[in-house]
Amino acid sequence: MRLYGYSRSSAAFRVRIALNLKGLTYDNASIHLRRGDQRQPPFLGVNPQGLVPALETDDQTLIQSLPIIEYLDETHPEPPFLPADAAGRARVRALAAIVACDIHPINNLRVLRYLSRPLGHDQAAIETWYNHWIESGFQALEGLLTTEQGTGVFCHGDKPGLADITLVPQVINAERYRLDMSPYPTVARIYEACMKLDAFAAAHPSRQSDYEE
Amino acid sequence: MRLYGYSRSSAAFRVRIALNLKGLTYDNASIHLRRGDQRQPPFLGVNPQGLVPALETDDQTLIQSLPIIEYLDETHPEPPFLPADAAGRARVRALAAIVACDIHPINNLRVLRYLSRPLGHDQAAIETWYNHWIESGFQALEGLLTTEQGTGVFCHGDKPGLADITLVPQVINAERYRLDMSPYPTVARIYEACMKLDAFAAAHPSRQSDYEE
Repeated sequence: MRLYGYSRSSAAFRVRIALNLKGLTYDNASIHLRRGDQRQPPFLGVNPQGLVPALETDDQTLIQSLPIIEYLDETHPEPPFLPADAAGRARVRALAAIVACDIHPINNLRVLRYLSRPLGHDQAAIETWYNHWIESGFQALEGLLTTEQGTGVFCHGDKPGLADITLVPQVINAERYRLDMSPYPTVARIYEACMKLDAFAAAHPSRQSDYEE
Repeated sequence: MRLYGYSRSSAAFRVRIALNLKGLTYDNASIHLRRGDQRQPPFLGVNPQGLVPALETDDQTLIQSLPIIEYLDETHPEPPFLPADAAGRARVRALAAIVACDIHPINNLRVLRYLSRPLGHDQAAIETWYNHWIESGFQALEGLLTTEQGTGVFCHGDKPGLADITLVPQVINAERYRLDMSPYPTVARIYEACMKLDAFAAAHPSRQSDYEE
């Protein structure tokens, strides 16, 4: 398999974690997002949407991080990313969606660039925007993780799964923008538990060959 | 089951379609988003995140539209919302994610309100923003639906599924903002095919009891 990604892309980071947890090896194709390589023909031939990640398998090219991760889970069932019961699966998918739908898309690079040009906002306004949406989502996550019985060492029980895969890159983004994490002790605790695992640690942006400070 | 929704909420609209396709009846609890009822205690007791939809079952409260729809599909398998093969499932989930992750969250009411206040943009700038993200996503969808073999009468084959459930509310949003749909003939064709089905038509915002012009 070949993963088209970028060190700093949260969505590619999720897929790196998932591949590592499944013990799958892959070729890494770096698409330099800040330079705009995702909008150039070589990559547009892989994913016409011009977004990473894309995962090439022997048969097809998969796009969109959560569908890719569900595909990996269906085709390589161990260790599972979702619990066996429908209610638990709905809970884990909802925790993942709070990050993947309600935080991350609004803070994506292309949205931040639109705020800069044409809308003309400065870096301070963009950082306020960025942290606003993380705070809103982390408040929801912290509330759910604190009050719901399903929470364990990880977001759901004592093994990492889809919600943890989605949460960790978002926490690292929050750290990068110096968000105060003290209102989210459960989020922070689960993040720490994940980062003790090689599958998560090895997927960190700073461990990728295309990483730049 | 009780669905907490709002006529104009695209995410609640998706769940209405899904419930209708499965032939499930439900109580409808209207949460008036423009009045701010989603941020008031009665509803915050249902979903502390303050977003619709939420679906109360006998056992639990489910949140996040796509996880709710996957739950309905797992607990009521007929008619299926996803194909049987993992590759097809990944394709359908990716088509749904282009709407649910890459278009809709950026155009959600709370984001448009942030653009208005504190960022101070006028209605024209907000409409340009709104259509920019729909155009970006619809270009991707049109390309995939036109070139990939999986496309049939509907997004995947000749029965409606998860991708159609997600697409239809987004097309109706595009119409509301007077987006020129002529660059997206396949999207428009699939939308028309869906709206001929009672399950889709009955879920339309204008058919809900809380609809206002």
